Amino acid sequence: MRALTGVGSTPLSGVGTARWYRPTALELPARPDPASVDREAERERFERAQRDAREAIRAARDRTAESVGEDEAAVFEAHEQFLDDPQLVDAIEESIDDGSPAEHAVSDAYADAIAQFEGMEGRMAERADDLRDVRDRLLRALLDVAAVDLGSLPQGTVLLADRLTPSDTAALDPDAVAGIATVTGGRTSHAAIIARSLAIPAVVGVGDGLDDVTEGATVLVDGEAGEVVVDPNEERRAAASDVDEPVVAARVSTADGRGIEVAANVGRPAELDPAAERGADGIGLYRTEFLFLDRDAPPDEDEQFEAITAALQAFPDERVVVRTLDVGGDKQVPYLDLPAEPNPFLGRRGVRLSLSDHADLFETQLRALLRAAATDAGDGLAVMVPMVARVEEVEDVLSRIEAVAATLDTEGVDYEIPALGAMVETPAASYVAGALADRLDFLSIGTNDLTQYVMAADRENDGVADLHDPLHPAVLRAVDRTVTAAHACDAWVGMCGEMAGDPDLTELLVGLGLDELSMSAVTVPAVKQRVRETDSETAAALADEILACETRAAVVARLDGVE
Amino acid sequence: MRALTGVGSTPLSGVGTARWYRPTALELPARPDPASVDREAERERFERAQRDAREAIRAARDRTAESVGEDEAAVFEAHEQFLDDPQLVDAIEESIDDGSPAEHAVSDAYADAIAQFEGMEGRMAERADDLRDVRDRLLRALLDVAAVDLGSLPQGTVLLADRLTPSDTAALDPDAVAGIATVTGGRTSHAAIIARSLAIPAVVGVGDGLDDVTEGATVLVDGEAGEVVVDPNEERRAAASDVDEPVVAARVSTADGRGIEVAANVGRPAELDPAAERGADGIGLYRTEFLFLDRDAPPDEDEQFEAITAALQAFPDERVVVRTLDVGGDKQVPYLDLPAEPNPFLGRRGVRLSLSDHADLFETQLRALLRAAATDAGDGLAVMVPMVARVEEVEDVLSRIEAVAATLDTEGVDYEIPALGAMVETPAASYVAGALADRLDFLSIGTNDLTQYVMAADRENDGVADLHDPLHPAVLRAVDRTVTAAHACDAWVGMCGEMAGDPDLTELLVGLGLDELSMSAVTVPAVKQRVRETDSETAAALADEILACETRAAVVARLDGVE
Repeated sequence: MRALTGVGSTPLSGVGTARWYRPTALELPARPDPASVDREAERERFERAQRDAREAIRAARDRTAESVGEDEAAVFEAHEQFLDDPQLVDAIEESIDDGSPAEHAVSDAYADAIAQFEGMEGRMAERADDLRDVRDRLLRALLDVAAVDLGSLPQGTVLLADRLTPSDTAALDPDAVAGIATVTGGRTSHAAIIARSLAIPAVVGVGDGLDDVTEGATVLVDGEAGEVVVDPNEERRAAASDVDEPVVAARVSTADGRGIEVAANVGRPAELDPAAERGADGIGLYRTEFLFLDRDAPPDEDEQFEAITAALQAFPDERVVVRTLDVGGDKQVPYLDLPAEPNPFLGRRGVRLSLSDHADLFETQLRALLRAAATDAGDGLAVMVPMVARVEEVEDVLSRIEAVAATLDTEGVDYEIPALGAMVETPAASYVAGALADRLDFLSIGTNDLTQYVMAADRENDGVADLHDPLHPAVLRAVDRTVTAAHACDAWVGMCGEMAGDPDLTELLVGLGLDELSMSAVTVPAVKQRVRETDSETAAALADEILACETRAAVVARLDGVE
Repeated sequence: MRALTGVGSTPLSGVGTARWYRPTALELPARPDPASVDREAERERFERAQRDAREAIRAARDRTAESVGEDEAAVFEAHEQFLDDPQLVDAIEESIDDGSPAEHAVSDAYADAIAQFEGMEGRMAERADDLRDVRDRLLRALLDVAAVDLGSLPQGTVLLADRLTPSDTAALDPDAVAGIATVTGGRTSHAAIIARSLAIPAVVGVGDGLDDVTEGATVLVDGEAGEVVVDPNEERRAAASDVDEPVVAARVSTADGRGIEVAANVGRPAELDPAAERGADGIGLYRTEFLFLDRDAPPDEDEQFEAITAALQAFPDERVVVRTLDVGGDKQVPYLDLPAEPNPFLGRRGVRLSLSDHADLFETQLRALLRAAATDAGDGLAVMVPMVARVEEVEDVLSRIEAVAATLDTEGVDYEIPALGAMVETPAASYVAGALADRLDFLSIGTNDLTQYVMAADRENDGVADLHDPLHPAVLRAVDRTVTAAHACDAWVGMCGEMAGDPDLTELLVGLGLDELSMSAVTVPAVKQRVRETDSETAAALADEILACETRAAVVARLDGVE
């Protein structure tokens, strides 16, 4: 038995047979004499490769949106941008003009860009893998090499690789792959995020030691401990499978008895049962977009009613927080005719559309929700409104609920008014959190968008990836302001962004006063474990120290226990 | 003498001869029998009109950027979006398919959209004028009607109109036009903003009473009092010209003696002398983009040095705050090869570019600034960095200044380190304002961008115009947090957004603790007057009450004195 350490990226364990993924290095032909290169023909070859790569990227996007989720699929939109990046395209075209064949031009231009990203810190460095992914698509198209098929690995494979690109990871069959271990990479790389969403145990950044693991060896990937164990003994296997055991239906409290709800984010009905199996205390974010995407017309009231009651029945004694339709921004719905906007993330999204252009859709959704609240398991229903920036919007929503209730009354239809909350995603919401909480039952902080807006950094733009990090002091202070203001108004506060599911941040979040954490179901057991180990007072002291930090580096140092 | 009241929009006065602008109503030919309409031909006519309108809009944009400024020119980018709006285009094409000629199809589709905007409140309603502007361009192209030439009105014209579009206003010759009065419109309409930038006295929203003013009458437009006076007597003319008299070089204090600097925002060297003539206490925002735009290569160090010293010499005893290069976002510079981004306002802008892709440009600019600080009038130089979101960025800027100073030392070149500040435009900066102020001499709040990011609403997207208002409580609280934190660190705080130049907000801003207000030079005298009338304690009490407001409506009611 031999253990290698890395960064646990999906906190699950799996045992299987090691198989190395060593994609054939894409070998370029020797550079010809520049004088012999037909510039015109090479430019055309490049353009054709660009088209082929674009098609492949879009297909990967759609496949990932279907099998993993819209959020995780967004990385492929970033890939499409690299494809069109003017600096890269200019460099490639200049190089062709100087007499390089298209494949050398691509390889050289991307090599420069990859080196640039690798010279940066943290998340920016991880974007180098995205560039490699795009480069390889272009080179495969130019050299006519087929991609290795990662979708049909034998059952029980532990996949070892130098690195995995997002495309590689999205192609994996989660039923066949028992685990992933890579030499390079970090917890927040797009590949790691996709692996987490697919619930594939993963350890990344193991280092060169991984190279010594031989093909066919029995390997345990322990994503909780961040270890790759070669030839694990029985004890180690048993310990690992213990960790993997879901905490069934048990509410958890901190060591000193403060209860914290650990709920799941769910985007499709198929995710409900797995969330329950992993011990989620209900659903902290039920995205309703699946009802509206990939079809030609919006769902009717009954279809929505059925979907909501199904979720309530999957968690009969728990709370299910349903978010009203959140489209616009990066989420387009063809039949809604949403306007093209120069800055869609700063445009008509979420509740803004529900209260204006699509008031009819919103009314239908409210009718379905109020009816579902009157069913057997309806007590657990809570409704949450996305993209709130003003008290006026909440007041408008409340009056529309009243109007819908009055109509249902007249029609003699059974209904109840469910608990109501708002997402805190805009900086504005953090600044008026008290006034919002005063009118509502709860707030739920969406850290992905909140970070994007507080830092003024598009979360899908790799050029500002280092700004998009919830550990920047400004974001943590916005979270603190929200929790403090809401508690003063007796509302509870949850968090449903990526941040909530990182077990290494559980103590901090408990210390900041969050009442509920909602995350990918796969991280529920690990976060529950951390909650149990946390002492509220120590956590509060940690939060105070962290809130006093002035830089992200200081926050990270304090979290790592380095002063 | 007869006085009509409206909303003062440019706080200047002018007397002249009334001339009504009644653009010939664009008369449509009678609707033909749908069966006789050639769908294909009409679609082509529409597409041609779209192309012509696009060309005209882009020309208006460029002309406005040149004569008024980049910010004011942005409205024409919004116009181009209307031209491509999928809902409008679909409606027009459907209508053509149903047998309408192109001009009827355009007229009908825009009529619906205009009615929708007019049904909304506040700023949204004002966007109806933008739609009319675009519609008329399309109709003029289809009907082959030339636009009335507003650029060659006789000297001393007071222009009366039902409404003016941004295009109308941008075409005016400010030397010929003594004033503007319109029946409809508000202070924040794009036409009003352009008139303000052109320093044309203006009163808008006068109502139907204006129709009784006859062509050729002598009319005084008093943009300070918000009055249109027909046949003004000598006394009234004299009083008006008093108001118009610039306060020359006199620093102002509140009634109880608190000094407030009232400075000017300047975007081109030609604006320096007019700013001094209007009594500006120096320059609170000197935009350096004019040095970089509309050319093929960046300016060299000496050219920048000359431009900065010219500004310092125009205000020899005052402070001149030079903002380092702020491109990206909506401001593109062809030779910089900035990446196309899906959300440019959330991308690589301002200091983000200066610290990464364009470190070379930044170094050259810093060299010019440090050298200028060592010249005769160099004591007044202050340097301000745009788009700061992190303490790390300020630390990076400080170390680059040190490096530049060390190089200049080695080279034996004279230099001084000027005062240094950061713009507070991102919500992040408001959340870490204390830590920023700790490392700097001052902060300057850019309310246009701060509002955009706090509210998560693109300031050029008319679809979210009602969110883009600095009187939303969240924005005011972000301003308050910034001022309080900076004062605790002994840094002074200025404001250089559109908000700073609204005399109706001067008392509130003094109450919030701002030390400096910087604005279009034209509003300097009116704001100075308001400062003198303000009592600090009453203002602070007002600010406290306003900060407790939970909605924009409550803020506006309190400002209007209605409880």
